[in-house]
Amino acid sequence: MNNFNDIIEKMLKGEIKPYQLDKLFGAKIATELRRKFIEKKVGVEFEHIANYTIDEEMAMKKNIENMIGAIQIPLGFAGPLKINGEYAKGDFYIPLATTEGALVASVNRGCSIITKCGGVDVRVIDDKMTRAPCLKTKSVVDAMKVKDWILENFERIKEVAESTTRHGKLVRIDPILIVGRNIYPRFVFKTGDAMGMNMVTIATEKACEFIEGELRNEGVFVKTVAVSGNVCVDKKPSGMNLINGRGKTVVAEIYLSEKEVNKYLKTTPEAIAEVNRLKNYIGSAASNSMGFNAHYANIVGAIFLATGQDEAHIVEGSLGITMAEVEDEGLYFSITLPDLPLGTVGGGTRVETQRECLEMLGCYGDGKALKFAEIVGGAVLAGELSLLGALASGHLGKAHQELGR
Amino acid sequence: MNNFNDIIEKMLKGEIKPYQLDKLFGAKIATELRRKFIEKKVGVEFEHIANYTIDEEMAMKKNIENMIGAIQIPLGFAGPLKINGEYAKGDFYIPLATTEGALVASVNRGCSIITKCGGVDVRVIDDKMTRAPCLKTKSVVDAMKVKDWILENFERIKEVAESTTRHGKLVRIDPILIVGRNIYPRFVFKTGDAMGMNMVTIATEKACEFIEGELRNEGVFVKTVAVSGNVCVDKKPSGMNLINGRGKTVVAEIYLSEKEVNKYLKTTPEAIAEVNRLKNYIGSAASNSMGFNAHYANIVGAIFLATGQDEAHIVEGSLGITMAEVEDEGLYFSITLPDLPLGTVGGGTRVETQRECLEMLGCYGDGKALKFAEIVGGAVLAGELSLLGALASGHLGKAHQELGR
Amino acid sequence: MNNFNDIIEKMLKGEIKPYQLDKLFGAKIATELRRKFIEKKVGVEFEHIANYTIDEEMAMKKNIENMIGAIQIPLGFAGPLKINGEYAKGDFYIPLATTEGALVASVNRGCSIITKCGGVDVRVIDDKMTRAPCLKTKSVVDAMKVKDWILENFERIKEVAESTTRHGKLVRIDPILIVGRNIYPRFVFKTGDAMGMNMVTIATEKACEFIEGELRNEGVFVKTVAVSGNVCVDKKPSGMNLINGRGKTVVAEIYLSEKEVNKYLKTTPEAIAEVNRLKNYIGSAASNSMGFNAHYANIVGAIFLATGQDEAHIVEGSLGITMAEVEDEGLYFSITLPDLPLGTVGGGTRVETQRECLEMLGCYGDGKALKFAEIVGGAVLAGELSLLGALASGHLGKAHQELGR
Amino acid sequence: MNNFNDIIEKMLKGEIKPYQLDKLFGAKIATELRRKFIEKKVGVEFEHIANYTIDEEMAMKKNIENMIGAIQIPLGFAGPLKINGEYAKGDFYIPLATTEGALVASVNRGCSIITKCGGVDVRVIDDKMTRAPCLKTKSVVDAMKVKDWILENFERIKEVAESTTRHGKLVRIDPILIVGRNIYPRFVFKTGDAMGMNMVTIATEKACEFIEGELRNEGVFVKTVAVSGNVCVDKKPSGMNLINGRGKTVVAEIYLSEKEVNKYLKTTPEAIAEVNRLKNYIGSAASNSMGFNAHYANIVGAIFLATGQDEAHIVEGSLGITMAEVEDEGLYFSITLPDLPLGTVGGGTRVETQRECLEMLGCYGDGKALKFAEIVGGAVLAGELSLLGALASGHLGKAHQELGR
Repeated sequence: MNNFNDIIEKMLKGEIKPYQLDKLFGAKIATELRRKFIEKKVGVEFEHIANYTIDEEMAMKKNIENMIGAIQIPLGFAGPLKINGEYAKGDFYIPLATTEGALVASVNRGCSIITKCGGVDVRVIDDKMTRAPCLKTKSVVDAMKVKDWILENFERIKEVAESTTRHGKLVRIDPILIVGRNIYPRFVFKTGDAMGMNMVTIATEKACEFIEGELRNEGVFVKTVAVSGNVCVDKKPSGMNLINGRGKTVVAEIYLSEKEVNKYLKTTPEAIAEVNRLKNYIGSAASNSMGFNAHYANIVGAIFLATGQDEAHIVEGSLGITMAEVEDEGLYFSITLPDLPLGTVGGGTRVETQRECLEMLGCYGDGKALKFAEIVGGAVLAGELSLLGALASGHLGKAHQELGR
Repeated sequence: MNNFNDIIEKMLKGEIKPYQLDKLFGAKIATELRRKFIEKKVGVEFEHIANYTIDEEMAMKKNIENMIGAIQIPLGFAGPLKINGEYAKGDFYIPLATTEGALVASVNRGCSIITKCGGVDVRVIDDKMTRAPCLKTKSVVDAMKVKDWILENFERIKEVAESTTRHGKLVRIDPILIVGRNIYPRFVFKTGDAMGMNMVTIATEKACEFIEGELRNEGVFVKTVAVSGNVCVDKKPSGMNLINGRGKTVVAEIYLSEKEVNKYLKTTPEAIAEVNRLKNYIGSAASNSMGFNAHYANIVGAIFLATGQDEAHIVEGSLGITMAEVEDEGLYFSITLPDLPLGTVGGGTRVETQRECLEMLGCYGDGKALKFAEIVGGAVLAGELSLLGALASGHLGKAHQELGR
Repeated sequence: MNNFNDIIEKMLKGEIKPYQLDKLFGAKIATELRRKFIEKKVGVEFEHIANYTIDEEMAMKKNIENMIGAIQIPLGFAGPLKINGEYAKGDFYIPLATTEGALVASVNRGCSIITKCGGVDVRVIDDKMTRAPCLKTKSVVDAMKVKDWILENFERIKEVAESTTRHGKLVRIDPILIVGRNIYPRFVFKTGDAMGMNMVTIATEKACEFIEGELRNEGVFVKTVAVSGNVCVDKKPSGMNLINGRGKTVVAEIYLSEKEVNKYLKTTPEAIAEVNRLKNYIGSAASNSMGFNAHYANIVGAIFLATGQDEAHIVEGSLGITMAEVEDEGLYFSITLPDLPLGTVGGGTRVETQRECLEMLGCYGDGKALKFAEIVGGAVLAGELSLLGALASGHLGKAHQELGR
Repeated sequence: MNNFNDIIEKMLKGEIKPYQLDKLFGAKIATELRRKFIEKKVGVEFEHIANYTIDEEMAMKKNIENMIGAIQIPLGFAGPLKINGEYAKGDFYIPLATTEGALVASVNRGCSIITKCGGVDVRVIDDKMTRAPCLKTKSVVDAMKVKDWILENFERIKEVAESTTRHGKLVRIDPILIVGRNIYPRFVFKTGDAMGMNMVTIATEKACEFIEGELRNEGVFVKTVAVSGNVCVDKKPSGMNLINGRGKTVVAEIYLSEKEVNKYLKTTPEAIAEVNRLKNYIGSAASNSMGFNAHYANIVGAIFLATGQDEAHIVEGSLGITMAEVEDEGLYFSITLPDLPLGTVGGGTRVETQRECLEMLGCYGDGKALKFAEIVGGAVLAGELSLLGALASGHLGKAHQELGR
């Protein structure tokens, strides 16, 4: 302990940098030292942050730098949720990590209704991860040459790109945007069960080097301005992803009879369809929104945190369109998620608590990403149906009030 | 323990519902019972989820239902970051909860550069929370009457709305959109140091009831279709919030001399300005994005999780515009966050680890929200500067590769 | 004529510039000379361009430079259209200038149905013209000062701005956007019966000079980077105008009984509501469109050309939301045009044929702009109803085919 | 004449409908009769509308119904404009039909500068016309089947679609969006030198019938809800077209030395780059615009009217991104028009005055569309450069003022 204080003293003097500690003392002790250093610095004791069970070494290798501990987010569950997917079949208990009171209750209500009514149908309609660098040339004529060259040499580019990765497969480069003399080729990969952002970044960077080199040999100047030219589009809301999709593109749907709507949602198919129309279509259109839904981000967010997905990808998960249509006096209800980047291996999925949440769904590890995507789709429908039902029957604010939130 | 098994048996038979346990056994035991119930159901042991120090009772009251434990997210820090704000002045250590390797390192690098160069200037330029219900009338003529009535009776509506809350103040209702015969009045509140969504939902619901009642007395039919009509706009990306702001609107800026850019970022002001232009402007414009930045969501996300903000609000934090301009041979660099909903009281801020993170910033509790917003702004600039610098000097993919990610 | 040839010879030699001719020979002869010059240059005879009745002198003063003649656009009419507006009351014949076959027929069908069913209700719900300069300052702190100063000195700015115009009234400056250290104050004017773009540009330019000068006196550097900073937003599609409106904001609506829909539109209320939902909401949302309608631009365009509006403002007229809802077994149908810049004095309204078209509507000159806006709204509804009806009954392509187009 | 009055009398009594006149009396007399009928109805004499030289019969066949005459729009020219295109090479005089004073002068100034500086480079980087119907199925599973079927049976669909047209070639169906159970396949055609909207509508309608029929035979229910499902996207601003293009996609660019900018534009490369950045990027981003340019719609509009293009397509021509970058102390300047639907045969191109304008450019008839597209691109660059130059040198409002507008 005495020793500890010495080191912290040196840190305070700037003689040792926080990030140097891992090599000197290993991740576990380094984490403690850094935490104590910050405690000194800010004059606060971190009793709770210090309490965690995740393996520091693994975390430091894959997920974090300058680690000082962990935060805890309350974990609840919703379910059982009956899902009729292509990969996910049966009843699932959905782990939800959130601090927003009433959210789990709301999703749970949706699950309960769905399960009573036979389950939700879900399909993954597309699956990919993308990176789009910005390449600069000397003129639009050169930009067109580069575009043509890329299209003609796809197989060679694919070979180069895939040389950097075991799992990533370059399936196409599309679209290839040209603005002035710059070109933005969108590299589209299959990344197996990993979300795959880093994999495709590295592969795309290599591909860019190759393209640069080959074209310079042919006398065409090309410069990679940025390996990400914001046409990917990563962690920003975009028409690109809304239209062309990114990550998993998922549709979930259910049909409820009039009786079921009356009984379980305490409202009518017409009322839900009207709320959906006036809120999710007209309201979103009038405020120039990209989210034609009530609260996809809530459900996507709570599952993403529970299962170790990248929290910034909640942004992309907020896009999409909810449908609610009266049909044969009942209700056709669907959600469409065009842009759901997720994985069941790599990234945060290996963190201990997150892994357990994936295991709760039978979705940890290889061969599980599509199943997991279907479950997310089903859960989003549950949350959306529950909220729209609550709005249609007029007791949203009241719900929050009763729960004292 | 025997007793435990009996209860779980009853749960498995459906004789006791998971949500009923809290009243019967208290939150602590209920949480354990539910966890064990799920373990049985899915055949997995939740060793890590079971390990947490947050108070179940408090969590169940405010933040979660059907609690079964907690997830842990690795927590690192970046800093010190020198901030020259109106409320935040001095050096800060930024808590970042993430599983995305290299993110903390990148933000940390930005903090280091900024601090060496005199710090980042930050200002909160607007502060509000909004809710916009959808009200339906019988005709556009009636919709215009309702709009006029709302404008004329603002003081009365304000009184009614504020009767539901100690902290919320209705400051205006603007804009009031009309589409066909429907109107979407955007209620704009000050919510003190709370993020305030629930507060304003309840207040708006009350105001709607009042408007409905008063206008029906005057012979104008008005129906609240939904207390949220998606013009708020909550947790969806939108032009509305990009333009009119929501939560805190924050600008951060810094000027770096040419030497500083060369020395600390290993590149030139011109190169950073070019990357910013071709990536954050042209690339985002060409892909119809609302995020004219590189990765605001990453930094906003990691701080939001660390400090107990609503994870779904990361969506809104992804909006905004980064500027990088060559000036007097140096670099003017700024970030603008139009839509940053956050608080230092209420919601998830009270969760133990999150509270500690806010304390790390000297931002827990009353009177701290503006200070906290400034710190977030400074950190976002740090992350953005670091990434754009890395892209400009051409070693993004390499960074990920070296860290093995 | 000999003389003519000499001048043209000099023009061909570059000794006389085309634009110099007006002063030398008057607008009429100058127009002829220029036309003949171009004929020589390109080797084509302009028989039809030469044939026009508009006064060259007036045109050259207000509408055109380098005039060489006029183009002719076929003019048809639709109607009578019964309008129940606040300003437009009664039956109107709508002039439509277009070369798109079937458009007039389609609008005419809509007018006929509407008129048989009692007419369309229309209201102008907002009326303004805007200009938003870009002002650059040295820092966000200065930008905030400028914003505050503008808000505090609104009356003085108003006086300066209005000193440049007889008709323009500055009603507010809102919103005032800040991005980094730049500010974009949106000047909102009433411009009477003129569309008013030039009026507000000149007034805003004067206001900017005033703001610059006053603030420099107070030690705050402000530079007008551009009198239009693209936040106006003029002639570009934008969330700004979709949300906050520009020009006239117009709503038109009608209720049709089930019988009327069956009889006149050969379809059902349900079918029209479905087409509207799947096309104008889902289709537009999925393609990230700002036009939640079928073809506003067609009708707005044909009336704008007929009546001398600025053709580039058709862009803004393309925004808006169509509603079609089944109600009491009939159909509620409305169109909302947030952004319709138009006038009945000034600009192209004085051109002889355009003036006659305005006279056809009883809308030429002072005090007619709101009436005219209502008529446009009614006509747009007619065109929209007709097309959606045609789609619902499944014979759009056929219609074009039968008319051989 | 007596006879005329009798007929008009019958029209006033409703015994003859305006549209019936063509068959009874031929287009010429019918036009006169209708005009006189309207004159009676509204009590105005149409002296100028009556004056036109276009052939009524041809107009009635292709371009208009219920014709009563023509409107005249003043026609000026800008140029010569030196264009270095792939198809357009040499000096061109650009016909511009507009009533917006100062526009022709501004474009002309741009042409003059460009021509002095060696001309503008232009390329058509893409060329297509699109239609995207909305097809409804019973479930997302069926929607996926339909999508797969379309991809697998592309050649058969192509054959069916092309059976309706001599010139249209179906080149791909992409993207095929799925929302819920609905699918929106975007049919992409080459349409030769025609703009081609009607051609592709008819071809797509036929293809839909085929798809419906074939899939019903296979037991999959498909219904064409609308032959246009708003994913086309026709005459509405959209991310779809901004990203994926429609009509001609055109890039034009020029490099000006510092001296040239100083001498001809009375400003500096830096100043133009700054205006472009703060107005066309930041201003447009902050107001959520799809037009990252100053005024494409003005130039596109004036050429479109002069040459008989569809006026509602000006909407699509307003999209795009202007670049202005300081390079080697000079200015790189480019415009990118992703969405420019135009033709040199069919539609309004055959109207007499419009044909003459196309002839002025050597662009009337077959084999001319790409050349024409390049000229439009060059002219847009001229207008954009001129306006940004004027803003940078600070005399926009003044220009309007001096010209008394």
